[in-house]
Amino acid sequence: KKRYNITLLPGDGIGPEVISIAKNVLQQAGSLEGLEFSFQEMPVGGAALDLVGVPLPEETVSAAKESDAVLLGAIGGYKWDKNEKHLKPETGLLQLRAGLKVFANLRPATVLPQLVDASTLKREVAEGVDLMVVRELTGGIYFGVPRGIKTNENGEEVGYNTEVYAAHEIDRIARVAFETARKRRGKLCSVDKANVLDASILWRRRVTALAAEYPDVELSHMYVDNAAMQLVRDPKQFDTIVTNNIFGDILSDEASMITGSIGMLPSASLSDSGPGLFEPIHGSAPDIAGQDKANPLATILSAAMLLKYGLGEEKAAKRIEDAVLGALNKGFRTGDIYSAGTKLVGCKEMGEEVLKSV
Amino acid sequence: KKRYNITLLPGDGIGPEVISIAKNVLQQAGSLEGLEFSFQEMPVGGAALDLVGVPLPEETVSAAKESDAVLLGAIGGYKWDKNEKHLKPETGLLQLRAGLKVFANLRPATVLPQLVDASTLKREVAEGVDLMVVRELTGGIYFGVPRGIKTNENGEEVGYNTEVYAAHEIDRIARVAFETARKRRGKLCSVDKANVLDASILWRRRVTALAAEYPDVELSHMYVDNAAMQLVRDPKQFDTIVTNNIFGDILSDEASMITGSIGMLPSASLSDSGPGLFEPIHGSAPDIAGQDKANPLATILSAAMLLKYGLGEEKAAKRIEDAVLGALNKGFRTGDIYSAGTKLVGCKEMGEEVLKSV
Ligand SMILES: CC(C)[C@H](C(=O)O)[C@@H](O)C(=O)O
Ligand SMILES: CC(C)[C@H](C(=O)O)[C@@H](O)C(=O)O
Repeated sequence: KKRYNITLLPGDGIGPEVISIAKNVLQQAGSLEGLEFSFQEMPVGGAALDLVGVPLPEETVSAAKESDAVLLGAIGGYKWDKNEKHLKPETGLLQLRAGLKVFANLRPATVLPQLVDASTLKREVAEGVDLMVVRELTGGIYFGVPRGIKTNENGEEVGYNTEVYAAHEIDRIARVAFETARKRRGKLCSVDKANVLDASILWRRRVTALAAEYPDVELSHMYVDNAAMQLVRDPKQFDTIVTNNIFGDILSDEASMITGSIGMLPSASLSDSGPGLFEPIHGSAPDIAGQDKANPLATILSAAMLLKYGLGEEKAAKRIEDAVLGALNKGFRTGDIYSAGTKLVGCKEMGEEVLKSV
Repeated sequence: KKRYNITLLPGDGIGPEVISIAKNVLQQAGSLEGLEFSFQEMPVGGAALDLVGVPLPEETVSAAKESDAVLLGAIGGYKWDKNEKHLKPETGLLQLRAGLKVFANLRPATVLPQLVDASTLKREVAEGVDLMVVRELTGGIYFGVPRGIKTNENGEEVGYNTEVYAAHEIDRIARVAFETARKRRGKLCSVDKANVLDASILWRRRVTALAAEYPDVELSHMYVDNAAMQLVRDPKQFDTIVTNNIFGDILSDEASMITGSIGMLPSASLSDSGPGLFEPIHGSAPDIAGQDKANPLATILSAAMLLKYGLGEEKAAKRIEDAVLGALNKGFRTGDIYSAGTKLVGCKEMGEEVLKSV
């Protein structure tokens, strides 16, 4: 029997509910494929702040680093919104990404036939959307120095950050993107602002140079403002998108909303060698926390990504993906994706339905 | 008779066609309100590159500065795409904005009842959208220093830019936004990334402090990734949005595409005291240039913004706005907004129809 150590980071809001369900599904899918998991739960975000006063305790990082993969629920909530920056739940998440060196963030945005009507886009525009945003996650303006708020010579406050990419940072994320596109429909669109930003000029130059090594992938370039438009105009034109940290933050959220079902969307954050970090793209939804209303499918599908991208266990991953489709095909829906004629269920019941089909 | 000097910058692609029409409409609306215009045409962008080798000749800047308002067509085209940065048409536009100190960019995104179906969003989501993005236009990462591409100690290339905002830059754009919201529905949403960026933390702090002076305006804050989602989910929730240069670039383009008719959307860029710069938000569309296919309405409506925001001539502005609605109500449509049952016309005929109704 293959054994894997998984770090579970339930976090805040609906995090604990969806993690406990995804854990069961993971265990079940694994055991049917001869995999054994041992789970260790650790605090992060607001939960960690309440417990020990920091958003990412040292013990959490080391447990995560020593495990084979990390599954995160969600972090943040009104309660900690006024905290200073270094005591914000979000800061814990950024520290975790940096600590695990997970530079490649994969965010699929898929419109399932069962859920086309959940999109605010017209059926013919939304139908069949299936794209993947590959976002650089440990560099750029999120981490660049110098940064801060200082007082200038006129006694005036000035806030500043640095957008910065070294060639090797661009190359490694571009490689992940080319490989991803190769396994999909072979189309890669690199998004930048090379008509204005120097960092983008280097970005475009490096990505273009690498294309020679991936002759089977069709590379195109698009400015970020145009990409934000094209996602609304015709999202089906995209297969794989690669972009920097901040543009990826914006565009992947826009793409996810285009599907109309962000309660369904998982993500994977991968490093060169260490454990990956897997999490739903939705937030902690404090307003519905603890009410058995959350949609657990994004976290369940994150567990599938954990199996596929984190552990290379494609069969077990496929079991989970199929089980999710099974539950949807039987008509089960949580509130966020409910429509007339389907069966409204809570978080737990949805979890049980998936578990039955694994 | 009141006299105004207007600088016309036709620019590239469809720029000349739409400017010549907008000029006629401006003249007509003005003369009916007792205004006399004298026009001076100057080169900018690719046209200027071809003529004198720079994208913004000194003569163009000084003519613009000495006039009462500037009306721009569009700039850019494949022909100059491979040019070095300082010889790109776009660089001319950035220099023009900086030269005129037009720090406040107003970009309305309105879904006209006549054109609801042009949106890719469902009718019930698109119907009634009427928002204004107030984008900071002369600061932030577009102009921040240090910037460049250098070789680091490992012999590796590094590209970098600086996102930077001084308190007074935030305050002046925020004031324009509060004033704008006050004249609209009294709701202002400030968009930033204060959970990650120091520049955004200062931004949020200054905007919040100013709110005390505008008790009649309801201020809210939103992270940029969420704003990109909310524009797709429910654009009607927005009245006025204020944000920095790069986020404004992305979000205003997204918002414009949500209307489905970017061939309709004008923009105004205003300074503290000098002439404003008015331009359609669409690009130069080189593929249809010179074919009498362009939609001139965005430029005509930019002329209306010129009258209203640039010269304070609200009556003449209203004439133009009404004339545009008149032409649409009679069923005239250029190709980009055509739908079954309406009358397809070219750029010139659309211009004549508007002229008739002024
Ligand atoms: C919470 C926040 C810091 C984070 C980010 O900006 O990366 C989130 O928006 C995300 O996309 O995972
Ligand atoms: C052409 C480009 C430099 C410009 C910008 O990024 O500001 C354009 O996208 C715009 O929004 O007017």
